[in-house]
Amino acid sequence: MNDMRKIVVLTGGVGGAKLVLGLSRLCPTANITAIVNTGDDFRQMGLPVSPDIDTLLYTLSGKSNRAQGWGREGESWAFMSAVKSLGGPDWFALGDGDLALHVMRGEALARHETLSAITARFARAWDIGVEILPMTDDAVATMLETDEGTLAFQDYFVARRCAPHVHAVNFEGAASARPAPRVIEAIMDADTRAILVAPSNPFLSIDPILSVPGIREALRSAIAPVEAISPIVAGASVKGPTDKLMRELRIPVSPAAVAAHYGDWIDAMLVDERDRHQPPGCPHHFADILMTSLDDRIRVARAGLELAKRLKR
Amino acid sequence: MNDMRKIVVLTGGVGGAKLVLGLSRLCPTANITAIVNTGDDFRQMGLPVSPDIDTLLYTLSGKSNRAQGWGREGESWAFMSAVKSLGGPDWFALGDGDLALHVMRGEALARHETLSAITARFARAWDIGVEILPMTDDAVATMLETDEGTLAFQDYFVARRCAPHVHAVNFEGAASARPAPRVIEAIMDADTRAILVAPSNPFLSIDPILSVPGIREALRSAIAPVEAISPIVAGASVKGPTDKLMRELRIPVSPAAVAAHYGDWIDAMLVDERDRHQPPGCPHHFADILMTSLDDRIRVARAGLELAKRLKR
Repeated sequence: MNDMRKIVVLTGGVGGAKLVLGLSRLCPTANITAIVNTGDDFRQMGLPVSPDIDTLLYTLSGKSNRAQGWGREGESWAFMSAVKSLGGPDWFALGDGDLALHVMRGEALARHETLSAITARFARAWDIGVEILPMTDDAVATMLETDEGTLAFQDYFVARRCAPHVHAVNFEGAASARPAPRVIEAIMDADTRAILVAPSNPFLSIDPILSVPGIREALRSAIAPVEAISPIVAGASVKGPTDKLMRELRIPVSPAAVAAHYGDWIDAMLVDERDRHQPPGCPHHFADILMTSLDDRIRVARAGLELAKRLKR
Repeated sequence: MNDMRKIVVLTGGVGGAKLVLGLSRLCPTANITAIVNTGDDFRQMGLPVSPDIDTLLYTLSGKSNRAQGWGREGESWAFMSAVKSLGGPDWFALGDGDLALHVMRGEALARHETLSAITARFARAWDIGVEILPMTDDAVATMLETDEGTLAFQDYFVARRCAPHVHAVNFEGAASARPAPRVIEAIMDADTRAILVAPSNPFLSIDPILSVPGIREALRSAIAPVEAISPIVAGASVKGPTDKLMRELRIPVSPAAVAAHYGDWIDAMLVDERDRHQPPGCPHHFADILMTSLDDRIRVARAGLELAKRLKR
């Protein structure tokens, strides 16, 4: 087996970025491609924010605030304070340094540069070897049907802190979206040795990627095996609203239920050893998959790669 | 004479803001209207910057950096540093706090709020009693014909630090621009007791205001006397490129030449006592008009008001 072959990761925000960071310490970064959820993207005061792409950019360039899980280390807040003094919206915190990504992205989108080209340019500027691909350059918006009505992702996640009861999730614009350049190619590439599904929220981070026509089909017909890393650890989500959302959607909170939700396009799942009592129906391997330290991230990435090595398609 | 009547000031950036600040300590702020140059307005990374309006907002709300003459006191620069790291343009410094004005203005312009409505909203939020009116809500751009070709104002002023030799100044878009709401009304108001022309650059700050059709005519037929405060002190400009520009345009660097340039719509000029040897042809009064301290600003504003009191139309 040639370990120089490529790894593709489907990923959302914080959890996925941890896995990709772990992988980047095990493989040459040039061999890693991250396909990133953009369903959370939105405009704040006109500025285009891509939370999951930004989290990856910060994590992989060593700029992320690890304690907080999002944004930049050592961020300052003079902008937000001035916005507040002018009566502007302050429910979504835009840090002073963070603003550079959004302002420059806004300027570039306005002159019709694509999100994928912009993202590649930012990654190059920060010397990030990993290829970061938005799932699409088109507008896809994760919308939640809740007991408070239809909410856009950030309204649910940030403004309402995931409090509303969710009964359905839709991806507005998905039907007419096209995968960004290189997405299908990376999945189908004969040089790809494994496709990993990061332990991101299946419903809010991975499903939006799958909602883009062509991506699920590519995963089904890929040469490389597809392996999911369970977002459920010890019967609960490590972070974020996955378990609450699963209960609201009447899905058992278990790795098995996540594997069943993903369906026939995954070949295996890496499951936390604390969840041995509820193994998924697909091939699986148990390991400690909680990622707290950098060593944890590397260990989980290694376990993911080792399981993938044993898989065949 | 009823001192509660209104004062109108035509103004550019720093020098004009000093005068308006001085006036605001002598008159109720609700009685002061500033008509502000917007010929320097431009977009940086897509964000609309209105330098002269912003200088007034900062000066009148006590937020201005007095040593520097522009921007906010105690400004931080995390945004610029991140922009630079991403390969973005760094020739025009946008401070972290300063960005709030530009981002919120950009968002509001995109939903078709006018510059004058936005400016009024910002002034209210910061409790600024003075009425701040952009000269127009339409796009007028000060363009300089130089030995390096045609340059937009900020390219000349900031990027090239006024180095190019200027042979003409044009106001792009002026022919079809309309005065912003309240501009003509404020000038023509029977309650206006004086119209002051701030000691701003006549060619780059005051001429753009006059380039908007209807404003010069209103000044000519106003009931209130119009009085210019000389931007030339002791044979030179206090700050900025006024004197260099006048030499390049082959105009003598003197208060008299500025008064002649303004022409028949000014009734008088307040001239610095160091320029007694070159009095303007119009009625004038000599005083120390150099504004360094806040006391100076108040003293010059008072001298301006006293001269205006003696004028009749």
